[in-house]
Amino acid sequence: MTAVFRAERISAAQVLSGTRDLVRPALREAVAGLHPWLAEMAAYSFGWREGAEAGGKGVRQALAVLGARAAGADAGAGVPGAVAVELVHAFSLLHDDIMDGDANRRGRPALWKAYGTGPAVLAGDALFALAVGVLADVPGGVRLLSGALADVMRGQADDLLFASRPWTGPEAVTPEEYRVMAEGKTGALLGCSLALGALLGGAPRPVVAALDRAGRHAGVAFQLADDVLGIWGRPEVTGKPVGGDLREGKRTYPVLAALAAPEGARLPGLLRRHRTAEAAALIEAAGGRAAALAEARAHLAAARTLLDRLPLEPGAAAELGALLDALTDRER
Amino acid sequence: MTAVFRAERISAAQVLSGTRDLVRPALREAVAGLHPWLAEMAAYSFGWREGAEAGGKGVRQALAVLGARAAGADAGAGVPGAVAVELVHAFSLLHDDIMDGDANRRGRPALWKAYGTGPAVLAGDALFALAVGVLADVPGGVRLLSGALADVMRGQADDLLFASRPWTGPEAVTPEEYRVMAEGKTGALLGCSLALGALLGGAPRPVVAALDRAGRHAGVAFQLADDVLGIWGRPEVTGKPVGGDLREGKRTYPVLAALAAPEGARLPGLLRRHRTAEAAALIEAAGGRAAALAEARAHLAAARTLLDRLPLEPGAAAELGALLDALTDRER
Repeated sequence: MTAVFRAERISAAQVLSGTRDLVRPALREAVAGLHPWLAEMAAYSFGWREGAEAGGKGVRQALAVLGARAAGADAGAGVPGAVAVELVHAFSLLHDDIMDGDANRRGRPALWKAYGTGPAVLAGDALFALAVGVLADVPGGVRLLSGALADVMRGQADDLLFASRPWTGPEAVTPEEYRVMAEGKTGALLGCSLALGALLGGAPRPVVAALDRAGRHAGVAFQLADDVLGIWGRPEVTGKPVGGDLREGKRTYPVLAALAAPEGARLPGLLRRHRTAEAAALIEAAGGRAAALAEARAHLAAARTLLDRLPLEPGAAAELGALLDALTDRER
Repeated sequence: MTAVFRAERISAAQVLSGTRDLVRPALREAVAGLHPWLAEMAAYSFGWREGAEAGGKGVRQALAVLGARAAGADAGAGVPGAVAVELVHAFSLLHDDIMDGDANRRGRPALWKAYGTGPAVLAGDALFALAVGVLADVPGGVRLLSGALADVMRGQADDLLFASRPWTGPEAVTPEEYRVMAEGKTGALLGCSLALGALLGGAPRPVVAALDRAGRHAGVAFQLADDVLGIWGRPEVTGKPVGGDLREGKRTYPVLAALAAPEGARLPGLLRRHRTAEAAALIEAAGGRAAALAEARAHLAAARTLLDRLPLEPGAAAELGALLDALTDRER
């Protein structure tokens, strides 16, 4: 009871901040083993500069640590998994920015803009290899990671291919195709983070597998919330330009949902002419925003249902619940 | 005696061709598990098209299979290692071509030219992840691979940075820096190929480690021979433009050796003005070509000395010797 009481009062921000403090020394030590130039690029991409600790919120490392604690182990048991998933996440961001041609990341030039495409490709490769090395001696760890990565690559491939599909007709992207893409691109690594932590914490296989599935649902919810922010988020908070996703013609869920409604008929024309403000208003009027948020809530509920059935350490489970809720209720 | 007799008559070309036939089904099966678009790009990069079996010679897969056989196991025992190292090699070529801006590979457009930079980055990532997955359940396999990859990235980073160093003076690239770069960039994966095969074949740790070192020496010899071909090779055989390495200002060993000789004083000026034919003649006159070939022979001898001391299956050892000799005596 005490643990639950304590944990319920803890905010997601505290969970994230506490995990960053716990994981940082091991993450920095791993990066320090790279070639100095690669380590410099890694530090840039993590936002380690001028003594600051900017950079990502560290959702994946928090999931890994909570996975270990949920299995009844100390937080420290999850640290190798946390380091590995943060390295993989950093690698995937570096390569994503190249693939998507995104010149900015977290309000400053993307690594490929700052160092060049070739060096950014190499820095990503080095972070990927480092992540594999961190888990090389964890029984079952590399299998979990490589399975997740296969799904990440598959989701990424679909995401790139979606852009060349028509907006309407039999060749258009379906909501189910979107779900599979989002589960791969975003969910697989979130699921892997939780699962790796649980594995390191000594959880039995079925618990590891259930946490993986819960993390995947949370990832789809996260991607759906990201889609909403990509259209209606405030750029000073998201760090992305207004209407960027709409201008790039991304097949986000609010757009797919609006296209399925009668009001959405005018949407392809607006998107083609890059009339992003009108397109955003039309998507909202056609119910695209509400549909995306409802879908996000459904995936979050599925994640929580899975978690509720597992014999998890209560304090960690409560913190995990708070973190999952924050994933979809955010201003990034 | 019979095994040695039989093996001595086998040529490197036969060893390579036999291994390609042995490994091909497993390699194709692994690639078939990828997203269809990624599998298509992988097939392009392996040269699998129109029923042909073009593509690389498969040195790395042959080393993996010979490593297993040298340890006394069946050739088939080395196949998972062979698949993994060919996948890693293909991944590194895809990303190298992007880093180096090389528009052609094996006489046709590089993947990034044919499919775009983003898709080529992703295809490389997918091959990398697939290689890790192939070895995920081999005890010690991922540790060997990740160690090699760390050295590959380090060598690649040095190779990229060398281009911005001055040709002469205290900041110039030294032959020892070159050796470390070449051992990382080329030797680490060749060493890993042999070592992985031996590991899969059940060799004891010291044998695995010695084969790794032998493969690294062979890799440096291979890179030195590549440097010579990059300047004096026939383009219809190498598939590379005449003088490409010189035009790009690559810090190859023949250039470094020529710069160390008094006759090399005019070389930086010729290279800066892209007078590649004159530069090649000057490098040869200054002894750069002879020095590179002598260095290659020395590394090959070091590899053979290591191999001679190991208790290897004689037939496999003889084929391995023939393969290593062919690495530096080739017209690629």
